[in-house]
Amino acid sequence: MVNIAVLGYGTVGSGVVEVIDTNSASLEKKTGSGINIKYVLDLRDFPGDRVEPILVHDFDIILNDPEVRVVVEVMGGVEPAYTFVKKSLLAGKNVCTSNKELVAAHGPELIQIAREHNINFLFEASVGGAIPVIRPINSSLTADKILQIKGILNGTTNYILTKMSQEGWDFDEALKSAQENGFAERNPEADIEGYDATRKIAILSSLAFGNNVDFEDVYTEGISKITKADIAYAKELGCAVKLLASSTCEDGKYYAMVAPFLVPASHPLYAVNGVYNAIFVNGPQIGDVMFYGSGAGKLPTACAVVADVVDAVKHLDKHIYTFWSPEKLPLTGTENATRSFFVRVNGKKSDCEDKIREQFGSVRFVSTAEDPDGFGFVTDLVAEKVFDERVRSIPGFAGRIRIEGTLS
Amino acid sequence: MVNIAVLGYGTVGSGVVEVIDTNSASLEKKTGSGINIKYVLDLRDFPGDRVEPILVHDFDIILNDPEVRVVVEVMGGVEPAYTFVKKSLLAGKNVCTSNKELVAAHGPELIQIAREHNINFLFEASVGGAIPVIRPINSSLTADKILQIKGILNGTTNYILTKMSQEGWDFDEALKSAQENGFAERNPEADIEGYDATRKIAILSSLAFGNNVDFEDVYTEGISKITKADIAYAKELGCAVKLLASSTCEDGKYYAMVAPFLVPASHPLYAVNGVYNAIFVNGPQIGDVMFYGSGAGKLPTACAVVADVVDAVKHLDKHIYTFWSPEKLPLTGTENATRSFFVRVNGKKSDCEDKIREQFGSVRFVSTAEDPDGFGFVTDLVAEKVFDERVRSIPGFAGRIRIEGTLS
Repeated sequence: MVNIAVLGYGTVGSGVVEVIDTNSASLEKKTGSGINIKYVLDLRDFPGDRVEPILVHDFDIILNDPEVRVVVEVMGGVEPAYTFVKKSLLAGKNVCTSNKELVAAHGPELIQIAREHNINFLFEASVGGAIPVIRPINSSLTADKILQIKGILNGTTNYILTKMSQEGWDFDEALKSAQENGFAERNPEADIEGYDATRKIAILSSLAFGNNVDFEDVYTEGISKITKADIAYAKELGCAVKLLASSTCEDGKYYAMVAPFLVPASHPLYAVNGVYNAIFVNGPQIGDVMFYGSGAGKLPTACAVVADVVDAVKHLDKHIYTFWSPEKLPLTGTENATRSFFVRVNGKKSDCEDKIREQFGSVRFVSTAEDPDGFGFVTDLVAEKVFDERVRSIPGFAGRIRIEGTLS
Repeated sequence: MVNIAVLGYGTVGSGVVEVIDTNSASLEKKTGSGINIKYVLDLRDFPGDRVEPILVHDFDIILNDPEVRVVVEVMGGVEPAYTFVKKSLLAGKNVCTSNKELVAAHGPELIQIAREHNINFLFEASVGGAIPVIRPINSSLTADKILQIKGILNGTTNYILTKMSQEGWDFDEALKSAQENGFAERNPEADIEGYDATRKIAILSSLAFGNNVDFEDVYTEGISKITKADIAYAKELGCAVKLLASSTCEDGKYYAMVAPFLVPASHPLYAVNGVYNAIFVNGPQIGDVMFYGSGAGKLPTACAVVADVVDAVKHLDKHIYTFWSPEKLPLTGTENATRSFFVRVNGKKSDCEDKIREQFGSVRFVSTAEDPDGFGFVTDLVAEKVFDERVRSIPGFAGRIRIEGTLS
């Protein structure tokens, strides 16, 4: 029996306890030894709860108990998680975490400490909820050079965009529904402004490219400016609006971004709806590989954490090599990335048509009843910086959304 | 530097050499030591080829060289692969294979030998080409009880069905195209009759359920009877025809099958086209997880093999526990599985309508110009054995295809 401690008894923490309790027999077979939750750390009390007899308020009890071999950190936030995790690793305890803020901010340092102590720091649940993606990048896609990662990494924004499209709601209505259903926090900024997806793409990119991608270097746009009219235009064009996180290696240069895109119906990410996530990985030899599943939720995320606990127990005396160097990977801007854009214009098409053709050549015009006083158009492929220069001279320019791939 | 030997210099074998040559620098980083191909075994000679200086015709040279730590078996077929692999493992050499016939026939025995010798027998490439699915089932989805696996596991049949649908070809034309493009063998029986998919679902089910699923117990239907009319009916119903392999745990009983299904457009497997494969895994806590990628091809398959080599090198002195007991998992028949069926009838609808309604209640009728002398109908949910009894009394009954989920 391997003793573990769970730091934090919130949504994910209580899910971890539930998953271990429910599957104790099969976990015993899979680990060869079984898992015993010796402590749960939380500031709160839970009278009458299953964890009442093992609840502690003082982290040092866990730190100083040599019987605890694996620490599960599911508190969220950088502090005090960082301090607790670092102390645990330095004390020779394996750590499994679902905490993307922690991993994005301190991943390489914590991996390094684990390596030096021949133990493991595992974080599958920090990206993509139940979807196995960290371990496949780290262990299954190792033969090829990964050139691109692209995906829907945030369930909250995907739920909002799905509801706007399916129910015809505006952004505020969809956000309210997400909050009422527990898919968005009361302060939803980290999700809707793209910061959550930015941390996740930084983690995946660091693992895929080997050097550390600083999430603060990633170009980030959220979805709070997406309107009902944008959704209507997307439908007219046979597309859905999705918040895509991506990182790309082109000619030895790297760039990464999080931004809303129009995704055509022929694209596999088009059909990823609600709180589901999906991640594409591309290499010259493996081609496209995609991972899909529930990106959030108590039990799916808890399953990913517990799978890491199983792996930690199977590797108690063996560091699993993770290819994430602390050396910083310099990112270039996105200004040379070439793509089509959807552009929204206030005013009459007849007033601007000549100017638009002068700047962008042959474009495709589109209109919708949701935007009676304006119209839209789709450009051919154009570099971001060229687009930015040219679009400035379009009178009535009201906004633009990038397009993933090409429209049919 | 870890020395390896490659058994078989055919499509996958030459791909393995190419992938290792191309990525030698990054493989050195990822393994910490680098990979050296010391021998390639083949009966043929390859004068002038890169492997000429390391080519051997006698397996014993490899077996008796203690420097060879990892043997890559990419010959295909059960013999002599089985003999070579078993001898390698007994001699303390790790083995990585892409050989689904070998794994389906002797998986648990070979895993057992590897365990006893504290080495590894790895076989990611035996299912799903480049798609990481074996390792995720073995290491990432371990916290939950897997209740169902369902997927498109054979690229050849999926290519044929895709071409029949997209190009309007009949089965023979599509098969010929598959052969001309190297996606089908000259003797295509193993693919088109479903035997290849049967072996793959048996491997995945054994790993997911823990006990050994004998591929000969899996109910199997191929696609050679699928006609242009079937494809046309599928389109009328908003579906695609796909060869699905699945295994299911229901009320503690297990059944597995490979058969063509009508898959509705709303289903994520609908859009999996050409030689792509996709695998769904479902558990009560993880929900649905899907893996998608190129299911065949020289380089994608070779990448999966080389990733196993990397893992073997990272675990030279540590057996990675694989949960596949030699104990046989008894499968029940599919007779109690409940689903809708599409039924094709020769003759006039007016002549059979009463009989059909008498047997199946309210059905949905469908017709297509491709079948001027017949018609089709779709039943409500019905158990397989009840369907089989009732359909016998329909005059002009000409065939049936199962339906995945429900039509919209």
